[in-house]
Amino acid sequence: MIKALVWGENIHERENEVVAGVYPDGMHACIAAALNADPGIQAETATLQDPEHGITAERLARTDILLWWGHAAHADVSDVVVQLVADAVYSGMGLILLHSAHFAKIFKHLMGTPCNLTWREAGERERLWVTAPGHPIARGLPPSFVLEREEMYGEPFGVPEALETVFISWFQGGEVFRSGLTYRRGAGNVFYFRPGHETYPTYYDANVRKVLTNAVHWAHNPQRATGDIHAAPNVRVNAAPEKIVARGPRLHKDGEDGFR
Amino acid sequence: MIKALVWGENIHERENEVVAGVYPDGMHACIAAALNADPGIQAETATLQDPEHGITAERLARTDILLWWGHAAHADVSDVVVQLVADAVYSGMGLILLHSAHFAKIFKHLMGTPCNLTWREAGERERLWVTAPGHPIARGLPPSFVLEREEMYGEPFGVPEALETVFISWFQGGEVFRSGLTYRRGAGNVFYFRPGHETYPTYYDANVRKVLTNAVHWAHNPQRATGDIHAAPNVRVNAAPEKIVARGPRLHKDGEDGFR
Amino acid sequence: MIKALVWGENIHERENEVVAGVYPDGMHACIAAALNADPGIQAETATLQDPEHGITAERLARTDILLWWGHAAHADVSDVVVQLVADAVYSGMGLILLHSAHFAKIFKHLMGTPCNLTWREAGERERLWVTAPGHPIARGLPPSFVLEREEMYGEPFGVPEALETVFISWFQGGEVFRSGLTYRRGAGNVFYFRPGHETYPTYYDANVRKVLTNAVHWAHNPQRATGDIHAAPNVRVNAAPEKIVARGPRLHKDGEDGFR
Amino acid sequence: MIKALVWGENIHERENEVVAGVYPDGMHACIAAALNADPGIQAETATLQDPEHGITAERLARTDILLWWGHAAHADVSDVVVQLVADAVYSGMGLILLHSAHFAKIFKHLMGTPCNLTWREAGERERLWVTAPGHPIARGLPPSFVLEREEMYGEPFGVPEALETVFISWFQGGEVFRSGLTYRRGAGNVFYFRPGHETYPTYYDANVRKVLTNAVHWAHNPQRATGDIHAAPNVRVNAAPEKIVARGPRLHKDGEDGFR
Repeated sequence: MIKALVWGENIHERENEVVAGVYPDGMHACIAAALNADPGIQAETATLQDPEHGITAERLARTDILLWWGHAAHADVSDVVVQLVADAVYSGMGLILLHSAHFAKIFKHLMGTPCNLTWREAGERERLWVTAPGHPIARGLPPSFVLEREEMYGEPFGVPEALETVFISWFQGGEVFRSGLTYRRGAGNVFYFRPGHETYPTYYDANVRKVLTNAVHWAHNPQRATGDIHAAPNVRVNAAPEKIVARGPRLHKDGEDGFR
Repeated sequence: MIKALVWGENIHERENEVVAGVYPDGMHACIAAALNADPGIQAETATLQDPEHGITAERLARTDILLWWGHAAHADVSDVVVQLVADAVYSGMGLILLHSAHFAKIFKHLMGTPCNLTWREAGERERLWVTAPGHPIARGLPPSFVLEREEMYGEPFGVPEALETVFISWFQGGEVFRSGLTYRRGAGNVFYFRPGHETYPTYYDANVRKVLTNAVHWAHNPQRATGDIHAAPNVRVNAAPEKIVARGPRLHKDGEDGFR
Repeated sequence: MIKALVWGENIHERENEVVAGVYPDGMHACIAAALNADPGIQAETATLQDPEHGITAERLARTDILLWWGHAAHADVSDVVVQLVADAVYSGMGLILLHSAHFAKIFKHLMGTPCNLTWREAGERERLWVTAPGHPIARGLPPSFVLEREEMYGEPFGVPEALETVFISWFQGGEVFRSGLTYRRGAGNVFYFRPGHETYPTYYDANVRKVLTNAVHWAHNPQRATGDIHAAPNVRVNAAPEKIVARGPRLHKDGEDGFR
Repeated sequence: MIKALVWGENIHERENEVVAGVYPDGMHACIAAALNADPGIQAETATLQDPEHGITAERLARTDILLWWGHAAHADVSDVVVQLVADAVYSGMGLILLHSAHFAKIFKHLMGTPCNLTWREAGERERLWVTAPGHPIARGLPPSFVLEREEMYGEPFGVPEALETVFISWFQGGEVFRSGLTYRRGAGNVFYFRPGHETYPTYYDANVRKVLTNAVHWAHNPQRATGDIHAAPNVRVNAAPEKIVARGPRLHKDGEDGFR
């Protein structure tokens, strides 16, 4: 059983009438329900309004996959939580970034780039093409699928070249976008998936739900690291794999901590 | 003429007798001299002790390649300078990280990973093997070269898989390390090069100097972006490449700034 | 249950006394036994001496993972079999190349490069370092492990940059080698693993057996493509996802086959 | 001065009235003229009809960059020439594959994959988006540019994940395609560029010509390997970088050639 945690910013669902109409229980609840329809996944939710945003080291330690949706309040996510999530990823937790989470602190932190793009909110047609048909994230999908009304995101997408490009979107207004990208950060599998503007019913779409479910399975790394994921251990001279004798000048005593 | 700027932390050279003996004018000066021996490169220096660490937006704007050596004082580098350097990289400045700069804030910022490793200071033999013989950074090098006394850095190196692996080191004590790695971040070329512990005369080595000179040429991107490298421009509906009509509910007015 | 097929050249085991002593039933049998110790894997064997080398389209269709060991008789493998294996990989069969299979026709075919290296047969010590500790192929392994007697393979290894570098070897004689590399070719996961010279008991080593078992699990893609994996279908004008009208001159009639 | 060689199949230009009208001197001549407009490039041409297709080892040795356009006669290109070109690439010659050369023997040889796609010849609008704005191949280009009439190529494109994705195309009929992809094979830089159907005047387009010119500069590797690019040299025991003593059984005598 894979333990998923769906994190939602949960702002527009409460403050914007249109969004509240589409996602009365919040987008996070809709996404968690999609995942829970898979017998191999057990999904919970957390939101920005929860104490510590619903994210503690303990909770992350028992989370296999974290899904992240944010938009209006990226800046309100505490840096402490961002570092907790990053460390969990390095130690093997999967992370799935949704739509406007391209500008989430955690995504920018893990990518090391601006993560910017162009955009247009016109309810236009988006068609997602599977560019890696054999990829586990694309399992059971048709060659392409349509979201009749979506926000446009356009290239250039300011991210590092992906490990694998799984989806590319075509937009009615003339743009394209790399909509499904995989990365590895430490032991953690990371997937960015573009669709999901809050004024449209994207997370009710059967193909989108299949992508999310597939992505949770793909991102699952059952081998979770323990201990200090940032450790830079000194190897004592007499513990070197091959026998050597220290020589020359030194800054450090044997076994000492290094500078950071 | 490529404009290089060699940034040195310049602490151990002033405070440690051994290091001062090896690099009386500072490591940055030794490295800059190596680069200035190439008629196509004009290298200056800056240090942590300079006002604003010697790094301003204006200076970076006229710098093609920044080389970075730091060790004992990573934490003293201001976050403002780190962001200035990151932005310069995104817009096309090359960045070359040297040795203990694996833990520099700027490298961790650009990689999005812990950048940790194992280490041992025993003055042991390091042999660097060229794994990409046709790469411009390896130009003119033999298949391998030796640094008789160096600090050991060992795998696992906590970085994303590189664009290209140019060097791998063999250590006398039994470890290996990916010692030359390339990355692209935005328009900027990034190169990490392992050797260079301050108690050894590594930066006087002819092969090391050739690597640095080659890397400066390789990292040079004459096409430097201008403007806001973090911009995420809204494309107005009537400016869409293909004619479309807006439909459905919207969060934003046309042309409005998005959330960040 | 994952279906594995271990293909062995099976020449030195029959013709060379030393190798026959180490692997009396053939290397393929030893490797298959290692895999069959895992309750989730069912491994069979095939050899060069079998009719059609033991490899037919039908057998490949029911094979999830093919492991390949060859050395002295790469040239004797029929081009028909090479193409069958390549097509199976493209459609989702996993392929694990062992040691001297770096020069197997199928590996060179899939890599598109010379796949050459340097080598020395001196029974020297090899130490494999895990460079991607969270990778499924490294699951349950220590940070490094030793094979006391192995053939040396040295860089440069003439392959494309890997998707992921999982192991790097240190050799007693001074060389290094990227010993565990992953690739994707079509829907097929490909893994090259260096150790396994036939005069040494490498495939009895517990860590090596763990790597092979892990690799079989990692390479398994349950989503196998059917149909012509080389198809380049014409999309008729009236079947375009968006309505368009054909215009301008044409070489082809609608629905016609293209040139190949 | 970079020496470029433009290879054209030169069949439809002679046999099809429409194509002859667009490219009266052949597509290769049109492309070579575009390159020769750059003072740093000197471009010649060769065609399938020339003796040995105009391609000999000697000619390749003095060629920095080979551009390849083929469509109707891939099968007529001799395997000897394909191997000559591959070897030249491994040793550092740049190779630029144009449009229907996705099915050229040399491209499939270097990629190790089917290189297939979907297609439609309807004279529809193609818009190429720059996905890597800082890349040398995109130098001086606008964010996107339009080819009013082109053949459609659609995903999935059966190639390995690229080193860098430089262009993605939007098609009027609803498809997308990764239209500019870079690879490294040995010391050779490889670039695939999609546009260029022979019934349209694509190679007269200013942006297309800029891409080709940029790509020639980008692909140029001044460091050309000599000698046998497939060599797998034995390192004699007494020539090991570190002193070792041979032990254990051996297949080979010291210095002997290995199996291939």
